[in-house]
Amino acid sequence: MKKTFLVLLLFPILLLSQELKSPNGDFSMLFELKDGKPTYQLNLKGNPIIKPSTLGFELVDMPSLLSDFEIKNTSTSTFDETWEPLWGEQAKIRNHYNELLVELSQKSSDRLLHIRFRLFDDGLGFRYEFPQQPNLTYFVIKEEKSQFALTGDHKTFWIPGDYDTQEYNYTTSKLSEIAGLMEDAITPNASQTPFSKNGIQTALMLKTDNGTYINIHEAALIEYACMHLEVNPDTFVLESHLTPDVQGNKGYMQVPRATPWRTVIASKNAGDILLSSITLNLNEPTTYEDTSWIKPVKYIGVWWEMITGKSSWSYTDVPSVQLGKTDFSKSTPNGTHAANNEKVKRYIDFAAEHGFSQVLVEGWNEGWEDYWFGKSKDFVFDFLTPYPDFDVTMLRDYAKSKGVQLMMHHETSGSVRNYERFMDKAYQFMVDNNYNSVKSGYVGNIIPRGETHYGQWMVNHYLYAVEKAAEYKIMVNAHEAVRPTGLSRTYPNLIGNESARGTEYEAFGGNTPDHTTILPFTRLIGGPMDYTPGIFVMDMSKLNPGNKSWVNSTIARQLALYVTMYSPLQMAADLPEHYEQHLDAFQFIKDVAIDWDTSLVLEAEPGDYVTYARKEKGGNNWFVGRSNDEEPRTSKIDFSFLDKGKTYIAIVYSDASNAHYRNNPQAYNIKKYRVTSKSKLTQACAPGGGYAISIMEPKDKNETKGLKRL
Amino acid sequence: MKKTFLVLLLFPILLLSQELKSPNGDFSMLFELKDGKPTYQLNLKGNPIIKPSTLGFELVDMPSLLSDFEIKNTSTSTFDETWEPLWGEQAKIRNHYNELLVELSQKSSDRLLHIRFRLFDDGLGFRYEFPQQPNLTYFVIKEEKSQFALTGDHKTFWIPGDYDTQEYNYTTSKLSEIAGLMEDAITPNASQTPFSKNGIQTALMLKTDNGTYINIHEAALIEYACMHLEVNPDTFVLESHLTPDVQGNKGYMQVPRATPWRTVIASKNAGDILLSSITLNLNEPTTYEDTSWIKPVKYIGVWWEMITGKSSWSYTDVPSVQLGKTDFSKSTPNGTHAANNEKVKRYIDFAAEHGFSQVLVEGWNEGWEDYWFGKSKDFVFDFLTPYPDFDVTMLRDYAKSKGVQLMMHHETSGSVRNYERFMDKAYQFMVDNNYNSVKSGYVGNIIPRGETHYGQWMVNHYLYAVEKAAEYKIMVNAHEAVRPTGLSRTYPNLIGNESARGTEYEAFGGNTPDHTTILPFTRLIGGPMDYTPGIFVMDMSKLNPGNKSWVNSTIARQLALYVTMYSPLQMAADLPEHYEQHLDAFQFIKDVAIDWDTSLVLEAEPGDYVTYARKEKGGNNWFVGRSNDEEPRTSKIDFSFLDKGKTYIAIVYSDASNAHYRNNPQAYNIKKYRVTSKSKLTQACAPGGGYAISIMEPKDKNETKGLKRL
Repeated sequence: MKKTFLVLLLFPILLLSQELKSPNGDFSMLFELKDGKPTYQLNLKGNPIIKPSTLGFELVDMPSLLSDFEIKNTSTSTFDETWEPLWGEQAKIRNHYNELLVELSQKSSDRLLHIRFRLFDDGLGFRYEFPQQPNLTYFVIKEEKSQFALTGDHKTFWIPGDYDTQEYNYTTSKLSEIAGLMEDAITPNASQTPFSKNGIQTALMLKTDNGTYINIHEAALIEYACMHLEVNPDTFVLESHLTPDVQGNKGYMQVPRATPWRTVIASKNAGDILLSSITLNLNEPTTYEDTSWIKPVKYIGVWWEMITGKSSWSYTDVPSVQLGKTDFSKSTPNGTHAANNEKVKRYIDFAAEHGFSQVLVEGWNEGWEDYWFGKSKDFVFDFLTPYPDFDVTMLRDYAKSKGVQLMMHHETSGSVRNYERFMDKAYQFMVDNNYNSVKSGYVGNIIPRGETHYGQWMVNHYLYAVEKAAEYKIMVNAHEAVRPTGLSRTYPNLIGNESARGTEYEAFGGNTPDHTTILPFTRLIGGPMDYTPGIFVMDMSKLNPGNKSWVNSTIARQLALYVTMYSPLQMAADLPEHYEQHLDAFQFIKDVAIDWDTSLVLEAEPGDYVTYARKEKGGNNWFVGRSNDEEPRTSKIDFSFLDKGKTYIAIVYSDASNAHYRNNPQAYNIKKYRVTSKSKLTQACAPGGGYAISIMEPKDKNETKGLKRL
Repeated sequence: MKKTFLVLLLFPILLLSQELKSPNGDFSMLFELKDGKPTYQLNLKGNPIIKPSTLGFELVDMPSLLSDFEIKNTSTSTFDETWEPLWGEQAKIRNHYNELLVELSQKSSDRLLHIRFRLFDDGLGFRYEFPQQPNLTYFVIKEEKSQFALTGDHKTFWIPGDYDTQEYNYTTSKLSEIAGLMEDAITPNASQTPFSKNGIQTALMLKTDNGTYINIHEAALIEYACMHLEVNPDTFVLESHLTPDVQGNKGYMQVPRATPWRTVIASKNAGDILLSSITLNLNEPTTYEDTSWIKPVKYIGVWWEMITGKSSWSYTDVPSVQLGKTDFSKSTPNGTHAANNEKVKRYIDFAAEHGFSQVLVEGWNEGWEDYWFGKSKDFVFDFLTPYPDFDVTMLRDYAKSKGVQLMMHHETSGSVRNYERFMDKAYQFMVDNNYNSVKSGYVGNIIPRGETHYGQWMVNHYLYAVEKAAEYKIMVNAHEAVRPTGLSRTYPNLIGNESARGTEYEAFGGNTPDHTTILPFTRLIGGPMDYTPGIFVMDMSKLNPGNKSWVNSTIARQLALYVTMYSPLQMAADLPEHYEQHLDAFQFIKDVAIDWDTSLVLEAEPGDYVTYARKEKGGNNWFVGRSNDEEPRTSKIDFSFLDKGKTYIAIVYSDASNAHYRNNPQAYNIKKYRVTSKSKLTQACAPGGGYAISIMEPKDKNETKGLKRL
């Protein structure tokens, strides 16, 4: 008896909690079973970021996985590896964390639930894992119940939770004010399914009263429904709200499975949020063997004139198209079809002249005449058949002769079975015709009817399209898809998404002037955005008298976006003739790199301004960009990031002193300077303005002669 | 004024009705606008079959198309053509009808609705057409409102209306009794969605008190939802009830479009219903250029032993399979996997020995271990990866060396996106491995979740699978699919469906002994059924002690089914060893043809008995078969269908005098006779019994020596 008693004392009698610290010790995470419920809390330098928050699941037709747990085992480990992304904001990324794996067993049901925590120097990631086990094989999630118990009524930069769209302007408010502002926030969209007056999307950006920045998102969203957050406006507890399918089920699961990672990034420094690599680090390395065909792309496109209403996607004006039955060769051209041979050649010439590698062409294919969205049309496009005035072969060869490629466009109209039926043929068509990148779209409600853009079903489809594209060495830029969650580490041919309110909305009523001072803190946390900036003419009625919209930006800020809105895919979105009117400003777009060795944040305040400095990959040039909100502000930066002892030529493209996004958007200055690492710049930014700077090594000493020194 | 008045009189002042007669004048159909509502009525030899019945549609978010019509135009025409089906019950089919096209316009909405009627000598077909028109392009059907106003409380042979299955035993009752019997009629199924206590399926068989047989079905179900019928038990009016999608919508339509045909076949002679070619005639001729690869198939299969529970589809016993992750080469075989190399070779040998051209093998491919249905598993099969004990190449070559082919099996488990993703590769795999026919299955609820087996979505899929199969020269036999509607005229590689309660249910609890005396009047009206008969051992506990089921049939009736259940695809479904115990009876299965020059009905009473005589295509042999219900009956037939002046050898396989489907099913007699066109036969049939007769020209005079004359 005595011996047994001694042995028992040597073991922890009841393991109820476990602490985890980040490598540098700043963060500490405490996992704790409270009354059998799994909880976690997160502190930064002793200050709570996340108060004790519960974890778990409600299941369909099964007891929940919320309580009655005991800890079977815990284990900790450390990981520290530096890896090189194929493309990105940094040439090298350090993946350094301490990990805690908690193995739980639910006593009454004998079911196992593991939770894995990874604590980085800038934040936390955690996910659930369902190991192979005797008492759980298939189950259906009714709701994931992951809480994020915030410490107060934080300032929040949010868009309405919605199963079908993220194309909303951001609202900035306290958490408690969200419900009262929700109705106004829900502006019209071709497909939208808001679900709650307290429901919001991720990545969610917050700022506490004491100046701590917090960001909540998810990483590695694979075979699972997209996570939204439901806000409790009294307790400031946020809870996960997954996207349901038509039957209200939120996930079809089969063990062994892991969920996506839930991430909490936090810092006193807003720039740390922007530069965090947590999302990418929580995704798996790629298994693609050959990635030589994946390259960042700078492109122009036959697109903006249709978006503005100046031209049409459609070729003719039949009221009802049936592919394979409607004979377009017999129809009367409407005279406004932009994707025609002459215009595309014009764009190819412009691209070749100015160093753009690809030309997107929308409206090249049959089917745009009638309700290509809005009427639940199943067989809407075939992705193969061009209009009579778009000569695929001639344009392919013409582009090739100019050293340019066309960029494919696959508008699916949300008719996803139809897209999958054609996908192999459509991709092969691309290969046969020298296309290696496709912009895909999912405008309108999803078919199969009842599914939404962000449910498990569609999450599965988006990845299917990317994986299949890789078989054909095709890069994918998916618009209206679920917002990214770092998947491009594993699938580097996913080079872009829109999945937020982009530049097109400037032509659909305008974006808020501070929109691009928020997007890097929200939409870009998960991955790059094909924001398609570079608009030089802001008055939409100049392109289409019937369009009263305004691009709420100055030209200088449009240039800055090539630096502040990171993307390996960058479009100069305006019409060539508009660029030809401002070739001096256009020069920045031509010069700016699209792949980076180093990225820094010089200034950042979500909703107010962001200023980045980035060094191009494989070269010595730097580029700086600042996006400014609706307030006139002064930016103060230094150039200490430059190599010491070197002299560079900096060209500063800035707002003219009287510039204003609405009243005088086209007023800009271009000034050339001689700069070194000791230089400083104080630059006024107009409302809705900003500046862009290219910093290049001079080709010879003469180039710097006569230049003012910064 | 006078002149105008005269002119007006020359034209019908208001066209309100139009009569149509069948070519032989027996049928007359009257179309009439009553209070602006389109109606039709049908008489046979002056007696009403269908009383005035309304037509039209309820639409979603649009005014209905039910009333307020005027007739814009009517036109009549005649059609008379004889065509030759690639395979079928007759070598030549006459398509002879008088047609009336009524062009309606709805006054308030200026929308056009055309109704086309075709009146044959054995019944009526009508369909709606929506021509290209300015005020209707896209619309969504809320409900089709086609009525069939019957003249009384007819005797009805029905199964429950259900969006997901037809695998019910038939109930015979009056129309008014249906609701009271519905609950008992709805027996369990892997996927079922009954919708109304008065809802029933088509093809619907009826018999009036004065002995008129009536059959209601549809033809050419393409891009539309399957039609059920809702019975009004007080008025005996049946109304169309389409299968809804998950949102309750019943059809997504884009003009110009036609609906399927609704058919009413009627006769005083039950055999006329069985032999009607209306369904096929209302389908379009095929546009397939090369059909040489389409041939009827007589096959055996590694299948019945799994259905009975004697063996398993699965290879091992893991609780949870993830394709591509579960390594079957490392798992322990469960010892009951039937689709293994040795057994398949045994079946190939048996097929070669006995003249069967194909061997179906189910359970050849990875994925059967866990919930291949019932848990909404998306990526459930890949249709490509065999189990470790199924050597695709070896068995392909072994079969080829024996002059036999394997028949592919694609169980989709209702996971239809998954099937479509693999379909091209799966069909190519078949081509590469010498398979030219596939049995496909849709067991379980459909994924996309919310869709059902009979909605427009799945109707589209089934045809997609058939059309794509034709690209690979593959024949399709789709189980659990929507019941056929004559599509095999247009798509002759659709050689079979199950789509009703087949022989497998004998092992799942048994079919009613009269089941096969009803199926020809219902399920077979739309096309052949892969009924898979030929069971010789009726006591399922002999194969699997745990299975208490009984095949409710005598052996003689099992033989008869090869004649009474027309199909170009016929399986000898039992185990080879059971046939080897009764090679004398098995001889009929070997001899019976599977493609026909002429088919006749000698005796028929739905629910009681059917007797067919058929002449093989390309030969002089005849085959007769009788299926008998649970009553002992005496069949009296003559052989006047034989060529006059010829002598044949008839082998009659009949029930022994004390045979009984339950008490003594294996008791049969085989008697050989000499017969001519003057012969007659009086033959006792046991309960659940019947007989089969092969009638062949003797090879030489000696063969008839000593044979008794009939």
